Amino acid sequence: MHPRVIASVLGAVVAATGAAMLIPAAFSYLISDGHWLSFALPAVAALLAGGMVFALSRGRPSAYVSIRDVFLMVVLGWISVAAAGSLPFYASGLMSPVEAFFNAMAGFTTTGVSTTEELSPSLLLWRSMSQWFGGIGIVVLFVAVAPLVGFGAAQLYSAEAATPLAERLTPRIRDTAKVLTYIYVSLTVVLAAALLAAGMGPFDAANHALTTVATGGYSTRQGSIAAFDSIAVELVLVAGMIFSGTNFALYFQVVRGRFREALTNAEYLAYLTLILSATAIMTVSLYAFDYQQSPLTALRLALFQSASLTTGTGFSTADWDSWDPLSQALLMVLMGIGGCAGSTSGGLKVVRALLLTKNAFQDAFRMVHPRAVTALKLGRRVVPERLRASLMGFFFVYVATLVAGTLLMALHQVPLGAAFGSAFACLNITGTAPGAPGDPTFYAELPATAKLMLSLLMLLGRLELFTVLVILTPAFWRG
Amino acid sequence: MHPRVIASVLGAVVAATGAAMLIPAAFSYLISDGHWLSFALPAVAALLAGGMVFALSRGRPSAYVSIRDVFLMVVLGWISVAAAGSLPFYASGLMSPVEAFFNAMAGFTTTGVSTTEELSPSLLLWRSMSQWFGGIGIVVLFVAVAPLVGFGAAQLYSAEAATPLAERLTPRIRDTAKVLTYIYVSLTVVLAAALLAAGMGPFDAANHALTTVATGGYSTRQGSIAAFDSIAVELVLVAGMIFSGTNFALYFQVVRGRFREALTNAEYLAYLTLILSATAIMTVSLYAFDYQQSPLTALRLALFQSASLTTGTGFSTADWDSWDPLSQALLMVLMGIGGCAGSTSGGLKVVRALLLTKNAFQDAFRMVHPRAVTALKLGRRVVPERLRASLMGFFFVYVATLVAGTLLMALHQVPLGAAFGSAFACLNITGTAPGAPGDPTFYAELPATAKLMLSLLMLLGRLELFTVLVILTPAFWRG
Ligand SMILES: [K+]
Ligand SMILES: [K+]
Repeated sequence: MHPRVIASVLGAVVAATGAAMLIPAAFSYLISDGHWLSFALPAVAALLAGGMVFALSRGRPSAYVSIRDVFLMVVLGWISVAAAGSLPFYASGLMSPVEAFFNAMAGFTTTGVSTTEELSPSLLLWRSMSQWFGGIGIVVLFVAVAPLVGFGAAQLYSAEAATPLAERLTPRIRDTAKVLTYIYVSLTVVLAAALLAAGMGPFDAANHALTTVATGGYSTRQGSIAAFDSIAVELVLVAGMIFSGTNFALYFQVVRGRFREALTNAEYLAYLTLILSATAIMTVSLYAFDYQQSPLTALRLALFQSASLTTGTGFSTADWDSWDPLSQALLMVLMGIGGCAGSTSGGLKVVRALLLTKNAFQDAFRMVHPRAVTALKLGRRVVPERLRASLMGFFFVYVATLVAGTLLMALHQVPLGAAFGSAFACLNITGTAPGAPGDPTFYAELPATAKLMLSLLMLLGRLELFTVLVILTPAFWRG
Repeated sequence: MHPRVIASVLGAVVAATGAAMLIPAAFSYLISDGHWLSFALPAVAALLAGGMVFALSRGRPSAYVSIRDVFLMVVLGWISVAAAGSLPFYASGLMSPVEAFFNAMAGFTTTGVSTTEELSPSLLLWRSMSQWFGGIGIVVLFVAVAPLVGFGAAQLYSAEAATPLAERLTPRIRDTAKVLTYIYVSLTVVLAAALLAAGMGPFDAANHALTTVATGGYSTRQGSIAAFDSIAVELVLVAGMIFSGTNFALYFQVVRGRFREALTNAEYLAYLTLILSATAIMTVSLYAFDYQQSPLTALRLALFQSASLTTGTGFSTADWDSWDPLSQALLMVLMGIGGCAGSTSGGLKVVRALLLTKNAFQDAFRMVHPRAVTALKLGRRVVPERLRASLMGFFFVYVATLVAGTLLMALHQVPLGAAFGSAFACLNITGTAPGAPGDPTFYAELPATAKLMLSLLMLLGRLELFTVLVILTPAFWRG
């Protein structure tokens, strides 16, 4: 382990978080919403503390960083950023330290749960920014870093490409990160412009662009997107969410002119099929069982909610927990499956769901033909047996974590349904669930330990479980 | 495929079901509860129809029966027995054909859900008998047949024994079945005697002995075991349920004098640990959160419910769906894990949960040490890589089936929680769940298609999924 390298990374990201706070500080000062000091003071503190750690720990660059260093950097990095990012919430006087940390973690993991929706514009901007930063962090981590180190669904995905992802993308992580950031920023700017064109005001457009590209789901309005009641806004957001739930490695391919390769990507096609077929079923179901006014209204609601929950964004145009049971159940399934690997979305990821399903059919085949050897394919590429095993192991750990989270919420005397719902919403990074966990007051009233537990679940979901779990095993610290 | 062999097996089991009906027919005639013809007529019909099919299809014994034949025999066998066994319910005039089939399937799969508890003594006896027959069928299938054919958790289990299960047990299936039946009958007789000694009347003792050894859970009383309010009865049933949730292959070892081998079986120890630790946690939880009168009352309730739901029996001494959330969540987890492979209990089976957990820790280890090779061990035996993969595949299919079942119940406009609960209760063969699906009126009011869907879920859970699912794949019918 290389503590100095880890410390320098942590110092740098905390300082960067501090620097980012200068934006809402300036904004708050400009509009005089009374919170500029809530940003300026934490900004100075984070810049000083982060900068100091960075300066002190930075020796000669370490030629070799171990896998364990990477895990520690990533996990401690996210926790440090959330801790630093929680300071404005705390300094605003609205929240206790734990509540502030919970909200910051919900932001930087792009989960989007919150303990209150009644925030001043500068605080709304800050939480939108936190999702945006969390989103680019995840894209860089899972598209540029993870394939080199060997974790995350991007591994499975890279098996589809002709060469390892590391070679296909610009070879060095820093360059890859730059290109990804460029794509991410472009998407954000285009989205903001489109939202303006669709009739949103500048503040709303900026915030929703930031939280859409991050599939974070924070809105500036308490009624979420329903508050705008605009088909144009909804269509822009649906497109934005679908684009943001796409593997960012595909945009690389598009930039390189390999359109066909990107558009025939097996996961991407399954992802679009998933959203469209869920929309179709839900349109029928809403029209048949839920007495919506017209098939078109049903379609409008179904499309928006399908895109929102498959990508794990969590925007809503309706109180879908009062919909018919089939639509609700379908939306839960979409939340669990999630978007594409290498995107900002959450859940299991489409590529995993696709391969697990294929594998199940192969298992059934082998029951009758025990000696048959069947390769697991994604597109035209064969998934290595080692990755097939780790894929299935991931699924068990995902369910086990969900069950453990539910038990811990139940320990806090949260009723069974809400215990499951809140664990589900946080682990899948959707930030919404039917019933009580769809409401900020539910989270506000939780005891501090439950808030910390859900924060951990968000981190687990965001970093695809093992990245965090390995650190909790004794084997990690041995030898 | 050998249709004549399959037909002769189906004919035989239907005739046997008819013969079994003569017992409640005689009992009904003796006590004059007005239902003897409801048994006598179906008995004659089943004996005639089954005997005729058997006589017509029986040619020279087939030297070779394929894997596909076995799957078809097992699945069609269970469906035929349930269909024949449903006739008395229908003939009683109390139920429609679909409702009768649903109740019979709940009996022969040992699930124990029902659409009514208001049945005459002879019908109560018949449903207890149906669980008892279902239980011995499952023990013979999974201990004697499955390891030879290659399905079910017994496969994993046999990896622990020095030699394949097929060699360890009496080699030929027929002999193995005889020994298993002897053990099963002995356990039933001992249980009935113990229940009599504990103060139950003869009818109650006989019925509860039949449904305990089958971990079926049908009671003669509407309040289940709470109606007896007797610590002696509860202790006998707890012991009976724990014995019945044990792998019957272990009793073989005990009969052969290999006590130590049986008692140090890794799954068995994990199973006892599971029940005892759940009891301990739940005792504290009930005492702390649920205001039970005393720690001893809490212990009494916790022990009974833990044993009942780990073994999937479903007896209850309390309305546990009004308990504190932690206890409820724990009981759901116990239902999901289930008892031992090769027993009459349901759920995933302890051996699978144990190996999946071990495998997850190994996965975490390999994240940090990518080149490490780690064998998956059960006791001192190594689980072959092929079985490790199919184990994990099973878990995904289990969850996917649960999700599909929930969606189909939701399609019938059952609210989300109850849709999940009923699918969970049927797939895990516990027959009980918190909330509405714990109540017969819930099932009674379901539309016919929903009843058939839950019947399929019971069959899927009872036959460990793949046995049924393979028949639904096109590959099964090809070539
Ligand atoms: K989200
Ligand atoms: K049962």
